[in-house]
Amino acid sequence: MASDGERRARVALSFLAKPGDPVLGSALRTRTAAELLALVTGADADGEALLTGEAEGAVLCRAVQRWRDRLGEIPSTARLAAWQDSGLRLIVPGDSEWPTQLDDLGDTRPLLLWLRGTADLRLTCVNSVAVVGARAATGYGNHVAVEMAAVLAEHGVGLVSGGAYGIDAGAHRGALAADGDTVAVLAGGLSFGYPRGNSDLFAAIAEQGVLISECPPDAGPTRPGFLVRNRIIAALSRGVVVVEAALRSGALNSARHARELCRPVMAVPGPVTSEYSAGCHELIRDYGAMLVTCAADVLGHINLASDGATPAGPRSGPATARDVLDPAAVAVLEEVPVRGGRGPASIAVRAGVDLDTALRCLGLLAVGGFVERCERGWRARRVT
Amino acid sequence: MASDGERRARVALSFLAKPGDPVLGSALRTRTAAELLALVTGADADGEALLTGEAEGAVLCRAVQRWRDRLGEIPSTARLAAWQDSGLRLIVPGDSEWPTQLDDLGDTRPLLLWLRGTADLRLTCVNSVAVVGARAATGYGNHVAVEMAAVLAEHGVGLVSGGAYGIDAGAHRGALAADGDTVAVLAGGLSFGYPRGNSDLFAAIAEQGVLISECPPDAGPTRPGFLVRNRIIAALSRGVVVVEAALRSGALNSARHARELCRPVMAVPGPVTSEYSAGCHELIRDYGAMLVTCAADVLGHINLASDGATPAGPRSGPATARDVLDPAAVAVLEEVPVRGGRGPASIAVRAGVDLDTALRCLGLLAVGGFVERCERGWRARRVT
Repeated sequence: MASDGERRARVALSFLAKPGDPVLGSALRTRTAAELLALVTGADADGEALLTGEAEGAVLCRAVQRWRDRLGEIPSTARLAAWQDSGLRLIVPGDSEWPTQLDDLGDTRPLLLWLRGTADLRLTCVNSVAVVGARAATGYGNHVAVEMAAVLAEHGVGLVSGGAYGIDAGAHRGALAADGDTVAVLAGGLSFGYPRGNSDLFAAIAEQGVLISECPPDAGPTRPGFLVRNRIIAALSRGVVVVEAALRSGALNSARHARELCRPVMAVPGPVTSEYSAGCHELIRDYGAMLVTCAADVLGHINLASDGATPAGPRSGPATARDVLDPAAVAVLEEVPVRGGRGPASIAVRAGVDLDTALRCLGLLAVGGFVERCERGWRARRVT
Repeated sequence: MASDGERRARVALSFLAKPGDPVLGSALRTRTAAELLALVTGADADGEALLTGEAEGAVLCRAVQRWRDRLGEIPSTARLAAWQDSGLRLIVPGDSEWPTQLDDLGDTRPLLLWLRGTADLRLTCVNSVAVVGARAATGYGNHVAVEMAAVLAEHGVGLVSGGAYGIDAGAHRGALAADGDTVAVLAGGLSFGYPRGNSDLFAAIAEQGVLISECPPDAGPTRPGFLVRNRIIAALSRGVVVVEAALRSGALNSARHARELCRPVMAVPGPVTSEYSAGCHELIRDYGAMLVTCAADVLGHINLASDGATPAGPRSGPATARDVLDPAAVAVLEEVPVRGGRGPASIAVRAGVDLDTALRCLGLLAVGGFVERCERGWRARRVT
């Protein structure tokens, strides 16, 4: 859990550095956010003097200069409070809702995430797939995205996608229609809410899932911002499905990030006469992406079994035999009541595990059909 | 070159045994066709007595009994002559037009082939691709088949396919439209000409390419006959492209034969919502078939370079540098005149190679753009 000072320093830095800045990420390996912020604000003159003498100091020195030019961007406490009052929440690494798979991003791991919505980001992403594709989707692509996301949702798989028109929007709509959890990763800030034409969709996602962004809430999207954002989509999910993409579509960039992160890359074929499937065909033909035609193909590729759970079955009953659960999961399951519900912190204490382990286990148990969330936390599902 | 006796015996056996009968193929490894025919006609009683004592003799003995029941099927000399007068010709292994890649079929190698048409079967197949698919093709599949075959033809690649409605017919039409060489392998006899609705197409193929069948000319097609025929399509070509095929389509059987013969298997994707592309997607997803979207993809996969020729370029000029030709090809090329033309037998004698080698070299030289056929045999192309 980050200290208040660390949290405040990360927030301040997020208004100075560009999202995913690897210089900042690298510097955070050996320094705290508060130390770095002190360098930028000039409060640590000794540190700055030291910097110029370091081997990699020159690169950091230039970055500090750039960040210093933007010190005026750091919002007042009142402005931050207003955002949080408007329904945004803010998480940093170490928070219980922080998805640990973002650590796979190394030096480009987000400094923090802004969230809006009811779903728990970490639990939703435990078992999620990214479904992405072109803004300029055809009726075919939109149909496939909606259908695939809906069936994945019915199988308890969370959806991760962007917030664009076309395939992204279709995938969210499919997941929402099937009462599934869905995560929209926006390239701009959550208050800016780009593109505006999707505001009804974003409201529906906030109701049932969660919208996230690493950008200041009122930041507009930038062209490079979309590409940087795609690394988060890839990192959060167990695999990326490209439904429709022309050659050189931005959706192929998500696939590249997934490949670099060793997430399975899947692509949906389409007519060879459609330029909007050409990128998908290129992924399969030249980059070893797996051809998928339906949600069942996707479920076969995201290897849920590697976490001790078998591929998620329909929500009608446990998909996992109790005897394949690891000892921590068994201990956690013992402490989840059948009636009433219990919060994760309380479950953790009773099970004798830390909160992170309890949350991880609850996620897997939910995927396996053993437990479900309720108003008062978690309760065990009756096995019929 | 088979003796007249051997040729006559093969013809007789082709009316007795089913196409691709491996018992007959196996027996022909150690016996001549004439010896086997003598066993069937009872002219070799000693041989038959011997057979029953052999280890694998029992299987052959039963086959000989079956063949004996069909002795009445052997046509008279007059009937054979009438077929040949009607424009059919007949080739057996060892004939100069016999495609030696059929030897890859081992014991299921055809006994003989009936041919109708102007193209030289062996030369056409030196550099050919099979384009196959479902009878029940969609407009999309038909469009892709026509287009792909036409572009392959423009690049000097011969087409091999069946004679069915749908993808097969579309592929032949595309090749014919581009003035290409095309080979139709029929499942029934050439005089029967199944399906009758394609008779105009068959006439056009005979004009410009060649129709072939291993069945007696007046034999109707049988259901197993289609599957047995598919092995010839696969063996004749350098690779098999499936354009459209439902699950369990017969076209997938051609792909299976190709895999067994180590020919590249390629498949064209289509909408995942179309059942007529489901077989293609299955080939790519589960059987390692290569996804191809156009003729250029196909050209990249059929490794013409393995024969010393680079992938066929457009017919406008030599696709192969003269200095990559093997010594035999260089010797043959020396003897191909620029004017007038010369027959292959004459070229072989002058080049000091046997006729088979001359024909192989002429095929490769034609693919490479060095020589072309003309009325009086072959002539060298002027390089501009």
